[in-house]
Amino acid sequence: MERLNVGLIGVGRIGRLHAEHLAYRIPTARLIAIADVDEAAAQACADRLGVREATADHGALLKRDDVDAVVICSPTNTHAQLIEESAAAGKQIFCEKPIDLRLDRVDAAIAAARRAGVKLQIGFNRRFDANFRRIRQAIENGEIGKPQILHIISRDPAPPSIEYVKVSGGMFMDMTIHDFDMARYLVGAEVEEVYALAGVTVNPEIGAAGDVDTALITLKFANGVFASIDNCRQAVYGYDQRVEVLGKKGSIRVDNNYPNSAVVSGAECVARDLPLNFFMDRYVESFLTEMRLFIDAVLKGAPVPVTGEDARAAMLLALAARKSCETNRPVRTSDVVCAD
Amino acid sequence: MERLNVGLIGVGRIGRLHAEHLAYRIPTARLIAIADVDEAAAQACADRLGVREATADHGALLKRDDVDAVVICSPTNTHAQLIEESAAAGKQIFCEKPIDLRLDRVDAAIAAARRAGVKLQIGFNRRFDANFRRIRQAIENGEIGKPQILHIISRDPAPPSIEYVKVSGGMFMDMTIHDFDMARYLVGAEVEEVYALAGVTVNPEIGAAGDVDTALITLKFANGVFASIDNCRQAVYGYDQRVEVLGKKGSIRVDNNYPNSAVVSGAECVARDLPLNFFMDRYVESFLTEMRLFIDAVLKGAPVPVTGEDARAAMLLALAARKSCETNRPVRTSDVVCAD
Amino acid sequence: MERLNVGLIGVGRIGRLHAEHLAYRIPTARLIAIADVDEAAAQACADRLGVREATADHGALLKRDDVDAVVICSPTNTHAQLIEESAAAGKQIFCEKPIDLRLDRVDAAIAAARRAGVKLQIGFNRRFDANFRRIRQAIENGEIGKPQILHIISRDPAPPSIEYVKVSGGMFMDMTIHDFDMARYLVGAEVEEVYALAGVTVNPEIGAAGDVDTALITLKFANGVFASIDNCRQAVYGYDQRVEVLGKKGSIRVDNNYPNSAVVSGAECVARDLPLNFFMDRYVESFLTEMRLFIDAVLKGAPVPVTGEDARAAMLLALAARKSCETNRPVRTSDVVCAD
Amino acid sequence: MERLNVGLIGVGRIGRLHAEHLAYRIPTARLIAIADVDEAAAQACADRLGVREATADHGALLKRDDVDAVVICSPTNTHAQLIEESAAAGKQIFCEKPIDLRLDRVDAAIAAARRAGVKLQIGFNRRFDANFRRIRQAIENGEIGKPQILHIISRDPAPPSIEYVKVSGGMFMDMTIHDFDMARYLVGAEVEEVYALAGVTVNPEIGAAGDVDTALITLKFANGVFASIDNCRQAVYGYDQRVEVLGKKGSIRVDNNYPNSAVVSGAECVARDLPLNFFMDRYVESFLTEMRLFIDAVLKGAPVPVTGEDARAAMLLALAARKSCETNRPVRTSDVVCAD
Repeated sequence: MERLNVGLIGVGRIGRLHAEHLAYRIPTARLIAIADVDEAAAQACADRLGVREATADHGALLKRDDVDAVVICSPTNTHAQLIEESAAAGKQIFCEKPIDLRLDRVDAAIAAARRAGVKLQIGFNRRFDANFRRIRQAIENGEIGKPQILHIISRDPAPPSIEYVKVSGGMFMDMTIHDFDMARYLVGAEVEEVYALAGVTVNPEIGAAGDVDTALITLKFANGVFASIDNCRQAVYGYDQRVEVLGKKGSIRVDNNYPNSAVVSGAECVARDLPLNFFMDRYVESFLTEMRLFIDAVLKGAPVPVTGEDARAAMLLALAARKSCETNRPVRTSDVVCAD
Repeated sequence: MERLNVGLIGVGRIGRLHAEHLAYRIPTARLIAIADVDEAAAQACADRLGVREATADHGALLKRDDVDAVVICSPTNTHAQLIEESAAAGKQIFCEKPIDLRLDRVDAAIAAARRAGVKLQIGFNRRFDANFRRIRQAIENGEIGKPQILHIISRDPAPPSIEYVKVSGGMFMDMTIHDFDMARYLVGAEVEEVYALAGVTVNPEIGAAGDVDTALITLKFANGVFASIDNCRQAVYGYDQRVEVLGKKGSIRVDNNYPNSAVVSGAECVARDLPLNFFMDRYVESFLTEMRLFIDAVLKGAPVPVTGEDARAAMLLALAARKSCETNRPVRTSDVVCAD
Repeated sequence: MERLNVGLIGVGRIGRLHAEHLAYRIPTARLIAIADVDEAAAQACADRLGVREATADHGALLKRDDVDAVVICSPTNTHAQLIEESAAAGKQIFCEKPIDLRLDRVDAAIAAARRAGVKLQIGFNRRFDANFRRIRQAIENGEIGKPQILHIISRDPAPPSIEYVKVSGGMFMDMTIHDFDMARYLVGAEVEEVYALAGVTVNPEIGAAGDVDTALITLKFANGVFASIDNCRQAVYGYDQRVEVLGKKGSIRVDNNYPNSAVVSGAECVARDLPLNFFMDRYVESFLTEMRLFIDAVLKGAPVPVTGEDARAAMLLALAARKSCETNRPVRTSDVVCAD
Repeated sequence: MERLNVGLIGVGRIGRLHAEHLAYRIPTARLIAIADVDEAAAQACADRLGVREATADHGALLKRDDVDAVVICSPTNTHAQLIEESAAAGKQIFCEKPIDLRLDRVDAAIAAARRAGVKLQIGFNRRFDANFRRIRQAIENGEIGKPQILHIISRDPAPPSIEYVKVSGGMFMDMTIHDFDMARYLVGAEVEEVYALAGVTVNPEIGAAGDVDTALITLKFANGVFASIDNCRQAVYGYDQRVEVLGKKGSIRVDNNYPNSAVVSGAECVARDLPLNFFMDRYVESFLTEMRLFIDAVLKGAPVPVTGEDARAAMLLALAARKSCETNRPVRTSDVVCAD
């Protein structure tokens, strides 16, 4: 069995998850090197997973001839630079979203990968969730006919820290971007116009930091589909990730995932446990699947399932949403320019 | 037991339903006269329900001293006139929605009832549906905390005839108006701004008739709540009437009503029967409840649960939605004027 | 429209419900006389429903020539006698279950009706519940193939008073009898053998009164189907009435009925309101339907949907269950004799 | 991190699953040797998982000093012998169920492990399923009060081959044994009496082979709980594994697991995909958990969660069920003797 040698950069929460998957869950991958600016963290992760090389210097990792592919899980502001360096080193690239908060930097990174002839897959893991795939499948195979209206509900269990909010790029770029990608993925068309209602209902400090925490966004697709995205930084009952689509021959909707299916009927109510709390639980399978597919794509020379262009398109929607918010009018995606 | 003597005008589908409720299901009401321009239809209905008087002349009905209240179920374009005549005759009034398609006519009808000191209740029956009442109750008693986002899905099983579409006043006035009322009822506040995406996805003839059949509308309430309304003139699986609300302490959602709870597991899928098909089945209880509450309000001298002002407010939202559609921008309700 | 003149005997809870249905909800019935040993109760009910005749003497009611049919809702120990008197008076008969607690009395009552050539329908109302009818329909139309295993769960929200328990004939005869009828109705075959586990888990006073309050009963049908019946006099979450059937081509199951479909997601759990609490709420439609079908059957000269023989068969199962309990062995229905 | 060296015997379907878990999913285990009478199969499995040693001779595996524990996944008729040999070699033991089809052989194997002072865990993996654990938790923490009635539904998607049926020990020993264990696990008490209705409704060849394919079994526990077990070798809609318990303070029930939560509303019905088809999909997590707990128990010197005595107790119930079937009477577990 052919195996792909992988180096991983950044061992934060998501980096450690990818590392574990590469080490234990994907027989066709071999995790051989780990880099993190915090060398002790890199070493601890390497030790736990039986990886031989740990380093504080990602450049050393990229220089290794035996590294075929890199998985970039470092902070957002390093993504574009690391993509360019990795491409220059001829490595196949998997990078967490977003590529960058500036459109020109995104374009440069995509171009670098293209020039180098390496693959670039972006971590929109939710596309690989069994529920959402089932919706995509229903649309693709005509099960519900031509789509007409799409609804995405995407709420976090609790807001991030104010420190995080300040560097996040704003809710549209940080959180809604997953939903923008999901909308494009499910509908299979491009968005022409975005209208965003947004405000602060969760925590005034988020407003003070210049961001919003609650939004209701509508999208008008080129193929005539309308979509709504409902975002909130806090749902007290946990992570709320639901989608439904109306089509001319039927509709499909998916519910949240629960830790069990138990229903308790008591003297007060009929109850079940709260849904899985956050993305590390809810999307654990989709994180694994996206990485499997990346490894597969490289080994087989096949296209990656989520491209840099996909990341750019989602980002454009985030920029349009922000502009719509600021101007309180619908914004055409064709009117978004680099300066937005 | 005191009983209220009622005359009913218009024995179309909804008129016959109200007549049956008044005759058989509301012990405190006594249906004593029925009018319809089609005298044979009036007579047939009267015979079936044991009502003594049937006439083609609603004026004769209004002249009867023993008629305490009238229930107006005639075509929309007669509502305002009949409200005014009934008010002039001193009758208590229940009138189907909408009062009129013109704002000035609505205002005149409301004023007439007020001047005459008679009650005027409008037939927004869905407020009395057990599911939606449960949502209102959850909001009122603080069960889900302060509301943040509301979603209404409201789809018909099949579009009406093109003839009906042409005289309907347009989808916003004919269909969405129920949802506008529902939004105001549930949130308990007024809408400041409306943005409507609308188009034709069901039947091009509806477009040719100058109307739309599919819409995604967003509302911004004065208290900061955001709402979406999803309308489609056709859902092949039947009548789709669902609502959900996110609040700071939780969320509540209601599903469609089904003819039974049976789940059949077969070799292909796990299935249940389609939801109740249309409003006569789905809302049969709410039609009964609204009439019971009207009779009660009159007998007890209490306020009616849905006023003419409520009808006007919903209509204003329909006008704003239409204007938003035409201009492709959000429209403030305060900017809607009579000429809209 | 032909209408059937009906006299009603016994205005306890269920009698008042039938009276209201006959007076208001069934256009082809005319309730003309009410009898109850408590004459004031009879009179109050008659007044409320606009019925002309109220009497303490059921004999007077039976003597009226204009009474076509009687509805017997008096205490169980009077049923057989009243059936015989009604039959002798040539009246069509609807009687609440059970006919009697003694098999020979049941047989005599059935024979009396047959000799007199009058119809006799017994009040196994649950057959007309939309959920259970849907199961019967699935079996009849082959939707789930040949039935193999049936499960009935039938639990009350709270036990009756000890006074009631003492005269009830025992749980099998009083409560399970509905489930025995349901099992026969759904499977469409006869039971050959009964095994009953029963005990006291709810209230020791029920045990002291010589009865049980909890049971798990298995049935073996002549056509090879196995069935279980789960009974408990108390389920703290309310009335629990569920059924499921496994067949060779699929399975079907029905859930409880709820006052609304609202789901509240809070910080502790995802909850819905308790199911409808007891039979007056859960089975209100089935009580109406059974009476409509009785009136229909008489007016059209058609067979009644639940016969005296059906009541006898269900009773035989109750006797077998009691004997099984006493002897701790399976009991063949063919071995049940009058003395049991 | 301390790691336990494990040898595995038998690489059939379940053996390969355990091997993969030991190799990749349990960081505290190290799979170092694989034995199977089919040496090529052992070698293929070892190659795939990077295990150094593969052999046709389990004796060689047991002789290795570096093997701390063995996982026995060979055919049932070898289990008791392998337990005894492993115990004699001082290995910790995990063995698939059942230990043996003869009670005296079971007792001997348990005694051997006890004498050798090694742990013996039996593969009743369903105890570790999230749904069933949630029920056990609800009972343990008093959430539903004292249990009164338990229902287990356990149906396979399709019957095994006739060849398998002939050597399976019969449905009670092969299939129901999981449910007997589940009943004991959930109720936390011992069964006093068993009554089994069983027959052939799926495939006459199963009957011709002397076995049954459909059963409805009732259990009477020493603590007064009643239980039913519904077994069928074929449910056309897939693997049906549901449980519910009524307790004095409430009830709890769990549903099947589904590949996704998608609900498709079409023109014919509202449908979802079939449940996960069989145990390798449905119970994949519980297989992993049981092995993790075994490794943990050995490393920490803690008791194993499912003992040989548990396996014996479940087997006793299977024997009682068989005897009940043959005699058509309830059988007390205390009356089951070795010769049964």
